[in-house]
Amino acid sequence: MIKEIKSRQNELVKEVAKLSDAKIRKQQKLFKVEGFHMLEMAKEANLVHSVFTLKQIKDLESKIPQYLVSEEVLEKLSSTKTPQGVVCVCHLLNEKPIKSDKVLYLDDVSDPGNLGTILRTALAFGYDDVILSKNCCSIYNEKTLQASQGAIFKLNIVTDLDLSKLKANGYQILATEIKGSISLEEVSKPEKLVLVLGNEAHGVSESILKLADKRIRIDIKNIESLNVAIAGAIAMFKFK
Amino acid sequence: MIKEIKSRQNELVKEVAKLSDAKIRKQQKLFKVEGFHMLEMAKEANLVHSVFTLKQIKDLESKIPQYLVSEEVLEKLSSTKTPQGVVCVCHLLNEKPIKSDKVLYLDDVSDPGNLGTILRTALAFGYDDVILSKNCCSIYNEKTLQASQGAIFKLNIVTDLDLSKLKANGYQILATEIKGSISLEEVSKPEKLVLVLGNEAHGVSESILKLADKRIRIDIKNIESLNVAIAGAIAMFKFK
Repeated sequence: MIKEIKSRQNELVKEVAKLSDAKIRKQQKLFKVEGFHMLEMAKEANLVHSVFTLKQIKDLESKIPQYLVSEEVLEKLSSTKTPQGVVCVCHLLNEKPIKSDKVLYLDDVSDPGNLGTILRTALAFGYDDVILSKNCCSIYNEKTLQASQGAIFKLNIVTDLDLSKLKANGYQILATEIKGSISLEEVSKPEKLVLVLGNEAHGVSESILKLADKRIRIDIKNIESLNVAIAGAIAMFKFK
Repeated sequence: MIKEIKSRQNELVKEVAKLSDAKIRKQQKLFKVEGFHMLEMAKEANLVHSVFTLKQIKDLESKIPQYLVSEEVLEKLSSTKTPQGVVCVCHLLNEKPIKSDKVLYLDDVSDPGNLGTILRTALAFGYDDVILSKNCCSIYNEKTLQASQGAIFKLNIVTDLDLSKLKANGYQILATEIKGSISLEEVSKPEKLVLVLGNEAHGVSESILKLADKRIRIDIKNIESLNVAIAGAIAMFKFK
């Protein structure tokens, strides 16, 4: 289905523009991404709901609504200053059971850029299952999506799963902590691993630290701490 | 010297607010930072020019001008929504000769957040000398300063130094490249090292790649590339 929309006042355009708002995303069970790279990844993940584009996209399933829009309309739908020709509305991700032997647990990571970068890195090093605690920022935040470079479409991202269940299933819980008792370099990779990264300001929460089998530090000097996405990447690389 | 300033229209306040602009910073040879943590680091580096604060700061050298300002004035001077009580005007950093045996070279890193995160990581892993190519973004950009967490005050940051000179002095040049011929894990740390990170979109430039002794890749899967600050951190950790 292909339709033209030329007015920024069109009701559908107004609805889609509102997907910048987390509440509306939850209500509508939809989010939006920008650019052809993201569209490709959304297509592979079978999550495309509809597409708003300057030029007709030829290799899109015909049942997916395709709206040919003007630059003004695209600008209204876009959250960047330079929209890349297409805005794609997607269904929210499905949560699947954890099945890989390397799991990443993010404990209240609150910065959207950090979250996106962590997801991009997780995918690169084979952490295909990612658990987000309740107070993590949203994976559908536009900054997160951009920093993730589409990684969210290839990961299994699960919300607020109880870590003690994984522990009971033989996973070792390794929490990163500035003052952790063991240096990362002394730790070898467990057979089944949950790697925990904490909040930017407060680190990993007390309840998770209690559950952890090891508290791991990355040895640094001259500065108080590393950025959480950096610390996480170094640990994921070590345990890849 | 302590003076009060209550008006946002005060000429000095207007001048300092303009330091958000790169051209003005260059002209005035000054930049500004926010918050007490940054002020502490600026003090240690002996770079404090003047201070604008809500409450008198007791342990500041008496020759440094201290301006007691209202919240409205501080807001005007600040680039964040929640100024942290103090804005500190600093002299630009001095460039010193390269003397450490681990040097980081940033080839047109253009994102301010990436640059700041890289500088924070460089300090943490003992890369005390950092060379910036001509087209890197500014270290005085407010996002860079924030992401660096004050690391700029402890590093020696040099602009546009010719790498062939370091090579002639016995440094090995290792450039990171997505399609590099050697995996990072196969490379051992040279005695004298220049680690090169490239631009977010284009990687390391051809001229620097030609100069490089090795082109190093970080093995990843399922995604095209890592964020430059992430790739850099993994390499710096490996060669720390």
